[in-house]
Amino acid sequence: MALIEKIQHPNDIKKIPPEQYGRLAEEIRQFLLEKVSVTGGHLASNLGAVELTMALHLALNFPEDKIVWDVGHQSYTHKILTGRRDGFDHLRQLGGISGFPKRKESDCDAFDTGHSSTSVSAALGMVRARELRGGSQTIVAVIGDGAMTGGLAYEALNNVSRLSSNLIIILNDNNMSISSNVGGLPKYLSEIRTSTGYLQLRDRIYDSLNDTLPAVVKGISKAKQSLKSLMVPGMFFEDMGITYLGPINGHNVQDMVKAIRDAKRVNKPVLIHVCTKKGAGYGPAEKNPSRFHGTPPFNVATGLPLKPSKKTTYTDVFSSSMLHLAETFPTLVGITAAMEDGVGLQRFHTRYPNRFFDVGIAEQHAVTFAAGLAIGGMKPVVAVYSTFLQRAYDQIVCDVCLQKLPVVFAIDRAGLVGADGETHQGIFDLSYLSSIPGMTVMAPKNRRELSDMLRFALSLECPVAIRYPRGAAYDGLRSCRAPLEMGRAEIICEEGGVLLLAVGSMVKTAEVVKEKLASHGIKSSIANARFVVPMDTELLRKAADKYSLVVTMEENIRSGGFGEHVAAWYAEAGLEIPLLNISIPDAFIEHGSPEELCRLTGIDADSVTDKILKKMGDK
Amino acid sequence: MALIEKIQHPNDIKKIPPEQYGRLAEEIRQFLLEKVSVTGGHLASNLGAVELTMALHLALNFPEDKIVWDVGHQSYTHKILTGRRDGFDHLRQLGGISGFPKRKESDCDAFDTGHSSTSVSAALGMVRARELRGGSQTIVAVIGDGAMTGGLAYEALNNVSRLSSNLIIILNDNNMSISSNVGGLPKYLSEIRTSTGYLQLRDRIYDSLNDTLPAVVKGISKAKQSLKSLMVPGMFFEDMGITYLGPINGHNVQDMVKAIRDAKRVNKPVLIHVCTKKGAGYGPAEKNPSRFHGTPPFNVATGLPLKPSKKTTYTDVFSSSMLHLAETFPTLVGITAAMEDGVGLQRFHTRYPNRFFDVGIAEQHAVTFAAGLAIGGMKPVVAVYSTFLQRAYDQIVCDVCLQKLPVVFAIDRAGLVGADGETHQGIFDLSYLSSIPGMTVMAPKNRRELSDMLRFALSLECPVAIRYPRGAAYDGLRSCRAPLEMGRAEIICEEGGVLLLAVGSMVKTAEVVKEKLASHGIKSSIANARFVVPMDTELLRKAADKYSLVVTMEENIRSGGFGEHVAAWYAEAGLEIPLLNISIPDAFIEHGSPEELCRLTGIDADSVTDKILKKMGDK
Repeated sequence: MALIEKIQHPNDIKKIPPEQYGRLAEEIRQFLLEKVSVTGGHLASNLGAVELTMALHLALNFPEDKIVWDVGHQSYTHKILTGRRDGFDHLRQLGGISGFPKRKESDCDAFDTGHSSTSVSAALGMVRARELRGGSQTIVAVIGDGAMTGGLAYEALNNVSRLSSNLIIILNDNNMSISSNVGGLPKYLSEIRTSTGYLQLRDRIYDSLNDTLPAVVKGISKAKQSLKSLMVPGMFFEDMGITYLGPINGHNVQDMVKAIRDAKRVNKPVLIHVCTKKGAGYGPAEKNPSRFHGTPPFNVATGLPLKPSKKTTYTDVFSSSMLHLAETFPTLVGITAAMEDGVGLQRFHTRYPNRFFDVGIAEQHAVTFAAGLAIGGMKPVVAVYSTFLQRAYDQIVCDVCLQKLPVVFAIDRAGLVGADGETHQGIFDLSYLSSIPGMTVMAPKNRRELSDMLRFALSLECPVAIRYPRGAAYDGLRSCRAPLEMGRAEIICEEGGVLLLAVGSMVKTAEVVKEKLASHGIKSSIANARFVVPMDTELLRKAADKYSLVVTMEENIRSGGFGEHVAAWYAEAGLEIPLLNISIPDAFIEHGSPEELCRLTGIDADSVTDKILKKMGDK
Repeated sequence: MALIEKIQHPNDIKKIPPEQYGRLAEEIRQFLLEKVSVTGGHLASNLGAVELTMALHLALNFPEDKIVWDVGHQSYTHKILTGRRDGFDHLRQLGGISGFPKRKESDCDAFDTGHSSTSVSAALGMVRARELRGGSQTIVAVIGDGAMTGGLAYEALNNVSRLSSNLIIILNDNNMSISSNVGGLPKYLSEIRTSTGYLQLRDRIYDSLNDTLPAVVKGISKAKQSLKSLMVPGMFFEDMGITYLGPINGHNVQDMVKAIRDAKRVNKPVLIHVCTKKGAGYGPAEKNPSRFHGTPPFNVATGLPLKPSKKTTYTDVFSSSMLHLAETFPTLVGITAAMEDGVGLQRFHTRYPNRFFDVGIAEQHAVTFAAGLAIGGMKPVVAVYSTFLQRAYDQIVCDVCLQKLPVVFAIDRAGLVGADGETHQGIFDLSYLSSIPGMTVMAPKNRRELSDMLRFALSLECPVAIRYPRGAAYDGLRSCRAPLEMGRAEIICEEGGVLLLAVGSMVKTAEVVKEKLASHGIKSSIANARFVVPMDTELLRKAADKYSLVVTMEENIRSGGFGEHVAAWYAEAGLEIPLLNISIPDAFIEHGSPEELCRLTGIDADSVTDKILKKMGDK
């Protein structure tokens, strides 16, 4: 019998004798490979955290004790060890288990995560609650070095220092965010990591001195240097008031169990610095952890995707456009928050290394930094996933839009993203962006329009957001390529009847709806909104006379979206025309395939057609 | 002739001989006291930064060189030294100069600020632009130790470390945010500050060891301690890859000029740690810097407000309610992000020290920390200004609402706040909050209703936001106190005719509008919306039959606000009724008195009445 099969319930791992930990780890890795190679999912981070998770489950009791998994994409082993092994056949599928911790899935999941750097804040809240209400549960935040580059983590560390009760922070340090890690703190951690021993005094080579230093500064720096060479690891955290333990080998279960048990006895915040290897135990993932961060189904033997996608994605289009545009616009610079691959800036990075900035998992900084670049005369393009841009809402308001700065937001993964689920759906951006004064908000109907919109955006001197979905870029409607004009929609097809006024990805859906309506003998026209802000009010005005029904279509929640703006405009204008708002209901949407989720939320062609028929019947 | 009068243009300070710096500083302080005591404004931070600003203006050239003033409320001396002295008679008044840096006001203002912790990001952007475009201007970020508790500042520092060209960060360390400072980093800075000399080796007393420490940990900690005692100031920043200079006396102009000149010659990021005294040179402000952070007009001799406000503000009501509610709800805890006084949590803090948390300028952490507390069984109330809550948009979405956690947001300064202007108006919250699934959004019509709503919110098990304006709490409509019911509006007065459906502060306005309409022979009714989400759709449905016109009234921008939701609901329901949306136009609104701004934005009683008359005339 495989060891992994003995683990049916939380805490079952404690029945495994220590000499079999290695075998169990191996079985878990095998299981992860078997399952994730079929369903797709996060792999490298999970392979790296197998022993760490085992150690936590050996040292803690569930569900009493609490682990907050930062980001949460490393929680697969935790799911296995809490009796959810069977769920992996439907990992990230509609109705199946989530790829992230979910409180509704298990009482062993302490906090829902998905976005980075929240774990220490949430865990600190739990610790304060424990202090106030009494209790002896152990509370642990597990945070990667990548997530440590997010400001929220630092805000939390700054607050943690005041604790006089136990909180364990495990720094799972693999020297990676999703892309390679960047910045001062990761460099510092790396210096600790590469020191040869545990708590060993060592020389540290600093290159922070510069030949041009004036004598005074040089003198000071020399004094500091000589002292620095006496330093021990973790002083950065100690300076913050946090007891530091480490670095510890993150693939040695027993060392970690011991450290966690020691840490539990300290009435203070303790940070255990654990060094792991992303993708550990699977060659292809060790070699290319970034590609195996989130992977589609793949061949375990070769590491290659099962169905190599030949389809050009919107990300690909963005990627190519940036290369072309960089020639036209010499001031163009590209910014990513730790998602160089995801947003498609690798080639731009290679071709224009000085004009590329990966700021780490730090969306707030990405946006304000872009504002500074714009003031300096550059044309910054912030390439970011819709859901992660939420982090920088205030910076978009105050630092970019208030100052009317020409920053372009290239917003990928807008709309229903699928398997990553609730925390990753890009379904709020039209709402939160369109209500910011001065922001121009666009969405392309197809691949060409994305590249046209980027060029158009760069020619403007104001903030612009362009949002486009995950996955294959629509290649239809090639001949529809009327020049972009600020605030003007594009008529795709004019036959009177029902006006399908669609935003971005929904233009393609509108084409199908049009056919379906025709089969019911209903005439329809299609307009590509192009701009959510400013709206084409001239089109809206004419539409009131021309069409029997205006159907707004958007892959965004209803509240604050395009449809509401249109309805409000008509009410304000005093024009009476039947309206139908096709949008995602105001709710968080779980994981599933984008197609399934479109059906579920009623924005697929069938549902839209049904709603139109119903609306026309009601009339 | 006073020295200050010689300063008419940027760089004029350079004509002042060094021996007169002291006199100039004194004159500037006198000027600030004279002016701010009449107009009101930020005082303590400006008094503290007089010499620092002089030093910067002596060491730099304007407008070529750039200073990014973090938060910006310390920029008065900068305004004086760049030729804007005459503007101080109308400081923060409609049409007058702003209390914050504004690029449109002067080309010596490099970046508009208002919210905390943006300076290093913006300055880094300018430095990168300088690298790419060429140039030799000096770029400086001036950031307070309070602003250093914000995660954005840390994200920026983490990125700064990679620079190999000059960037000067001046840490203006006065050991305060607006309230007293909190957390690990401020404690660390304080340790540097209280060391007796410049770069002197010293013993540092650490209390981070605990008697319950297990032997292993104790051994490690001891080894570290002995090494720590050898440490020099600023290693925290050096560990981040930033050259540290300091601490320097922030009231000695010539020392600072020298440090800035030295720093300019380093091809690296340099942090100059400058120690200042908030309120320096004015006894009452030195003694009570928090009260003189932002002050109304006051008597210079006594330090007392000119018109001591007898009016009960909404903040006062919140403050008292929290004391009462803390008894009813033993799990109630209060959270502020460095605004204990501003949000009215002083008395709660005093009475319930263990249930009060000031997290520093760290709104993101405040919200996620609250989520953790809620999971731990507490009832957290996050008390925060509307404009600053923008910082935590993503945390509200993912950490609170997605998990349906019972966190109450007590949102002060919602609506037009007045003198602080563009960056501080609380006019977006109804939009950004009402589009988050699962959030209940309320606004009280008067003081009693605020306290009722707080009690109601605490009785719920879901996220709730209550937004209320700055200033005197409305004490009318005392008898209207129907029990709160989820999603139900309150009929204030039912006479058919025009329905004035008002949100929060606009109920009071609606009463005046009703009278004005009556004088035109027009009947009207008033409903207090109470809930923006969920909307009272039953009322809306009935209203379509009952009234000749529905007027939605809100102190929020149009886009994504209550009015748009109502219009969209009617369109969706297929009910045709004339609608008028009274809201703030989609724009950033400058400083001025709230009354002036209401008129300017067309939401005062006269404007509303005119719009209603026009709408009825149009029909």
